[in-house]
Amino acid sequence: MSKIKIGIVGYGNLGKGAVEAIKQTEDMELVAIFSRRDPESLKLADPNVKAVHISNASDYKDEIDVMLLCGGSATDLPEQTPHFASMFNTVDSFDTHAKIPEFYQSVNEAATKNNTTAIISVGWDPGLFSINRVMAEAILPSGKNYTFWGKGLSQGHSDAVRRVTGVKNGVQYTIPSETAIERVRSGENPELGTADKHNRVCYIVAEEGADKAAIENEIKTMPNYFADYHTEVHFISEDELKRDHSKAPHGGFVIQSANTGADNTQIYEFSLKLDSNPEFTASVLVAYARAAYRLSSEKQFGAKTVYDVAPGYISPRSAEELRRDYL
Amino acid sequence: MSKIKIGIVGYGNLGKGAVEAIKQTEDMELVAIFSRRDPESLKLADPNVKAVHISNASDYKDEIDVMLLCGGSATDLPEQTPHFASMFNTVDSFDTHAKIPEFYQSVNEAATKNNTTAIISVGWDPGLFSINRVMAEAILPSGKNYTFWGKGLSQGHSDAVRRVTGVKNGVQYTIPSETAIERVRSGENPELGTADKHNRVCYIVAEEGADKAAIENEIKTMPNYFADYHTEVHFISEDELKRDHSKAPHGGFVIQSANTGADNTQIYEFSLKLDSNPEFTASVLVAYARAAYRLSSEKQFGAKTVYDVAPGYISPRSAEELRRDYL
Repeated sequence: MSKIKIGIVGYGNLGKGAVEAIKQTEDMELVAIFSRRDPESLKLADPNVKAVHISNASDYKDEIDVMLLCGGSATDLPEQTPHFASMFNTVDSFDTHAKIPEFYQSVNEAATKNNTTAIISVGWDPGLFSINRVMAEAILPSGKNYTFWGKGLSQGHSDAVRRVTGVKNGVQYTIPSETAIERVRSGENPELGTADKHNRVCYIVAEEGADKAAIENEIKTMPNYFADYHTEVHFISEDELKRDHSKAPHGGFVIQSANTGADNTQIYEFSLKLDSNPEFTASVLVAYARAAYRLSSEKQFGAKTVYDVAPGYISPRSAEELRRDYL
Repeated sequence: MSKIKIGIVGYGNLGKGAVEAIKQTEDMELVAIFSRRDPESLKLADPNVKAVHISNASDYKDEIDVMLLCGGSATDLPEQTPHFASMFNTVDSFDTHAKIPEFYQSVNEAATKNNTTAIISVGWDPGLFSINRVMAEAILPSGKNYTFWGKGLSQGHSDAVRRVTGVKNGVQYTIPSETAIERVRSGENPELGTADKHNRVCYIVAEEGADKAAIENEIKTMPNYFADYHTEVHFISEDELKRDHSKAPHGGFVIQSANTGADNTQIYEFSLKLDSNPEFTASVLVAYARAAYRLSSEKQFGAKTVYDVAPGYISPRSAEELRRDYL
């Protein structure tokens, strides 16, 4: 069987995680990594993988089945996904929840026009958590749904704080409230706002001479990312950041609590506990690359989300094998 | 918007749960319940729902969009699903894992021939647990997968203890081992047999004057059922049995533990804690009835499993709404 040929756009933590995730599959091979940086500077371990400047990606139209877009949601993906979806099947991890409808529309236009399949907003949230929110509600419609994030370093939120003027470097942790989780698991169905469920804690290295009060204020009032949350901002040194905050753990919980029949409490829970958020997110992207390849082979073109992808499409196993050994 | 018209075949605990689950939806209505019993004897609360003898089901071909098959897997469904799939779209909860391939084949033949959609083996195991076993493996292929069942009432084991001499009545709960779960959650990847993962707890009402020590010994040494497990036997009164053990709780955990990249442990977990096993299973069937209806509208005929159904198909919400509010 010929392998699914994968390209990676962007060689940050997510792109590096994708390289590792592809190694764990038996049905995919990595063809090339595309970067804005000088290809020579990428220093790839595997001599069979090419490093290519992003501007030459169109030369690889016939050599790559699915392009994994590993850029950031703030500025990279809104441009890159429509651009690459006009040439390749794509999978991305666009995670600016509020902008998904317009992002979907622009990607769908490019993909539909060019007969490609583009699965957007893949990962764990958006992604696996989104699936579980919808399935839990569909099955237990009378219930309440709770999403808790953390404890973990959020890539999207860390990117956001690093873009603030005067910030040299920084990380953001999301901390779920244990008390709130236990109240939900007990079937109590409490009313909980986002601030009741989490705190956000930032560790910031400021540029020399930067206005720390202005940085703190800009972070705490940032819409979508921080404005609705209780946020702490701590200033630390570059050395402290390296020593104490160089890993990227994350995780969280989706819990649906509902009553059925007379008064029977039913608790549905999905959770992740991740040592490496980018490596896990990349593993999800890689699994959905399989789905993008298959959907495209079936001429199911256009933009898709995880809601449009049947679970069997992300597995390397045949439908027959899944029925026999996994159902 | 016209509602999806549902029929229920079989009015045991699962069928009754389906009646309750349909009440919680806004896009479905229950048309009729089909039973082998005298329709008069069913005593339905809702005057708009008809009770019909199962032999007259074919009269309802134009009045029902999806038939929920709520019979048992041992003898009912192997006959009923192919029979009803030749006339209706169907959803069933066939759960004899070893016989799924031949069951699938006979249902697929009937459904394909008659242009119906039949989703088989729906519920939580098989069903939601099956989905999570496959998705977890697809995303974390290097890992190990663990399924734990319970805390839950096991019908087969309860039957077994009730057959012991001197036992008047009793129930058996399967309890997942907390120690084993914690070992898995820690990323240790232990080798665990079924008996390492589960304990068994029995609540027994003894006949008057019965030898309790002999009962306890007979239960604990019963081959296959108890001998290999850590088993507790508690003696209680008939009143206590009625008061504390008349529900059918169940649940369990699917956990995938894997390493990615250098040495990062990633834990994926799905769990259910159910006060009523039949009511939850019925709620899953009802959600998948929506998928059967839609797949059939799109002329995707034949037998399907949960692996073939994209998550969006079981939700009453539009794809646009899901992207905007849930992704």
